[in-house]
Amino acid sequence: MLIVQKYGGSSVADPDRIRAVAEHIVRAHAHGNQVVVVVSAMGKTTDDLVRLAHDVSQQPHGRELDMLLTAGERISMALLCMAMIDMGVHAVSFTGSQAGIVTDTVHGKARILEVKGDRIRETLAAGGVAVVAGFQGISTDKAITTLGRGGSDTTAVAIAAALGAEVCEIYTDVSGVFTADPRLVPEARKLARVSFDEMLEMAATGGRVLALRSVEFARSYNVPVHVRSSFTWEPGTWVVEEDPAMEQAVISGVTHDESDAKVTIAQVADRPGVAAAMFRALADEAVNVDMIVQNVSTAGHTDISFTVPRDDLRRALTVVEKVAAEIEATGVTYDEDVARVTIVGAGMKTNPGIAAKMFEVLAAEGVNIEMISTSSIRISCVIPQSDVEKAVRALHAAFELDQVV
Amino acid sequence: MLIVQKYGGSSVADPDRIRAVAEHIVRAHAHGNQVVVVVSAMGKTTDDLVRLAHDVSQQPHGRELDMLLTAGERISMALLCMAMIDMGVHAVSFTGSQAGIVTDTVHGKARILEVKGDRIRETLAAGGVAVVAGFQGISTDKAITTLGRGGSDTTAVAIAAALGAEVCEIYTDVSGVFTADPRLVPEARKLARVSFDEMLEMAATGGRVLALRSVEFARSYNVPVHVRSSFTWEPGTWVVEEDPAMEQAVISGVTHDESDAKVTIAQVADRPGVAAAMFRALADEAVNVDMIVQNVSTAGHTDISFTVPRDDLRRALTVVEKVAAEIEATGVTYDEDVARVTIVGAGMKTNPGIAAKMFEVLAAEGVNIEMISTSSIRISCVIPQSDVEKAVRALHAAFELDQVV
Repeated sequence: MLIVQKYGGSSVADPDRIRAVAEHIVRAHAHGNQVVVVVSAMGKTTDDLVRLAHDVSQQPHGRELDMLLTAGERISMALLCMAMIDMGVHAVSFTGSQAGIVTDTVHGKARILEVKGDRIRETLAAGGVAVVAGFQGISTDKAITTLGRGGSDTTAVAIAAALGAEVCEIYTDVSGVFTADPRLVPEARKLARVSFDEMLEMAATGGRVLALRSVEFARSYNVPVHVRSSFTWEPGTWVVEEDPAMEQAVISGVTHDESDAKVTIAQVADRPGVAAAMFRALADEAVNVDMIVQNVSTAGHTDISFTVPRDDLRRALTVVEKVAAEIEATGVTYDEDVARVTIVGAGMKTNPGIAAKMFEVLAAEGVNIEMISTSSIRISCVIPQSDVEKAVRALHAAFELDQVV
Repeated sequence: MLIVQKYGGSSVADPDRIRAVAEHIVRAHAHGNQVVVVVSAMGKTTDDLVRLAHDVSQQPHGRELDMLLTAGERISMALLCMAMIDMGVHAVSFTGSQAGIVTDTVHGKARILEVKGDRIRETLAAGGVAVVAGFQGISTDKAITTLGRGGSDTTAVAIAAALGAEVCEIYTDVSGVFTADPRLVPEARKLARVSFDEMLEMAATGGRVLALRSVEFARSYNVPVHVRSSFTWEPGTWVVEEDPAMEQAVISGVTHDESDAKVTIAQVADRPGVAAAMFRALADEAVNVDMIVQNVSTAGHTDISFTVPRDDLRRALTVVEKVAAEIEATGVTYDEDVARVTIVGAGMKTNPGIAAKMFEVLAAEGVNIEMISTSSIRISCVIPQSDVEKAVRALHAAFELDQVV
């Protein structure tokens, strides 16, 4: 069986952890599997390097920042190979470039265009374990690139897709995907199985277990992903294609996200092109707008609200205030004390009344809903940040997520 | 003018130092020079990485150790480029592999076979500064290699040779090459100029300013090297081809080395092949034998003494004791309390009596000479380690090295 295993930073944070991970890989290899390993930088290495860059430069240059950050995986993968070689296994490390991870030229958040993988295949054919640096690649114009936060997950899934691996195991410091954040909801239950679509919605709305882009990749190429713990090694959560034949829970999980701020532009003229002008201006400044809500028009005017990452708020306000003046809006307000609570479930599609139930649960808790946004398998509400814990717990209980289906 | 500048670890040890170095490079560039920079890892990074490797593995695998260690220059060169870009200069970093530093396949002490340098030339042609990782290359079978301690000096000289640079400036934490170690001899004087041959002898006998291999390279390709300080930026020492037309000092410097041990094999049968058997066995165990002295034969037997790095002593003794039994020597003794003191000078060739004077100076100080070895421009004596300071000071004074010629 061909397996891709990915180990996150906490899994290889120190020499003891590295040896424990090496033992686990060697065991999988000894059982007759072909194993490709993708590894992140040790512990907080990447954060430390980013800090160093900002100590040297106010605005570190993208190409050079990528050159800098890719040092991290180089260190962890070499150490991991040393540990495996000590155990008698032919282990060989490859940088993103050596493994043929070809990306576009966008430094800091490059997208993988192709996985060549020739040297990985050679190593497997020679009976060895190939260890590949996560998070990095080589661009079409031969510069070193990085894939952005969570990029190692994407590397692993992309390699699994390219090699036709039977599973991509993502080892991390939690034991799987839970029905809610266990720090907020002690009764939260580990899900044995979740669909790509549900996982996508969870990743997009605050579930931190898997990076969004890696789930998109897994869904596109139908790569089964097994999220599990490198500390307990117990079976975790399988992220797989939805099986319509299977009985499924209406709601799979509750997620929350406290990293956004809300911006409202009041009394915008309700005519074509106004919203476009606003959001084009924000996009040009690379502000990541998430939820957008526009109220019905009253007397030819409307209010537009949207959320942005709190880190982008200052930049967003500068843009919005400028454009608001041009489009003759009456004012711009913002609120940093907001959070988003979301319920996700593939069964929602065939069960009417889920939204109503969610709003009732929040109302019963006295939680005011400020914005609502939905997809076919997700409902998100923006609420006051101080109500997050209460809201998540109430929703978890109301939808009986602590009960095994 | 095309200049190669190399900065050692202490020159780029922290963000402030990196910015100071960036300013200096930018100044050279602004004066209309084409500048290629070679940089070492920051401060003690390489030592830290070696320690980490030994925390993970008792005997780190060569290929993976090289993969690990090359992370160091990646960090320093990226930071240096960021700092220069902030100053408005088009600076681009290249790994050894990207710069086309092709080496043989000996991990940990690879030799440079070729410098392609296409991307360096492209960067210079575009008006930019190329920053190249020192100490590293890519082997003929596409593995990352390192050149061993001091390897960044060799990278710099090799690039200077390949590009036909007018000078290779080696920036370090001392202001040049001195007539003796200033920590031992306060009157030691900085040399304005020293020949390749003299520098080779100094580097081989304890002068720590330049790595031996880089001097060999500079001599082979006739690359003028300017060793100078990145802290004071004052003019340092030029290492250049000997100019026979120039009046020169008889002695240029006194060096000392306290890292060796002495091994003596007593009463070896004086017949062909005996010494060969001994030193072949040592070579096979990769013990670096330095000085070898064989006394005249008495009654068909002789004593052989040699020095080895103190770190290799245990290994050397194991080999020697085994071989000594085979060749029926009467015994093996060793002494770790030894040091070597050397005088170097191109003028020695045409001045008889230098050796005699050296022995007289040591005798007058009551220093016992245990071994002697000479070349046409060097005389080395092995003496008790406790006499080193006294010997170096006495020789420095006797040969009037504190006087400008």
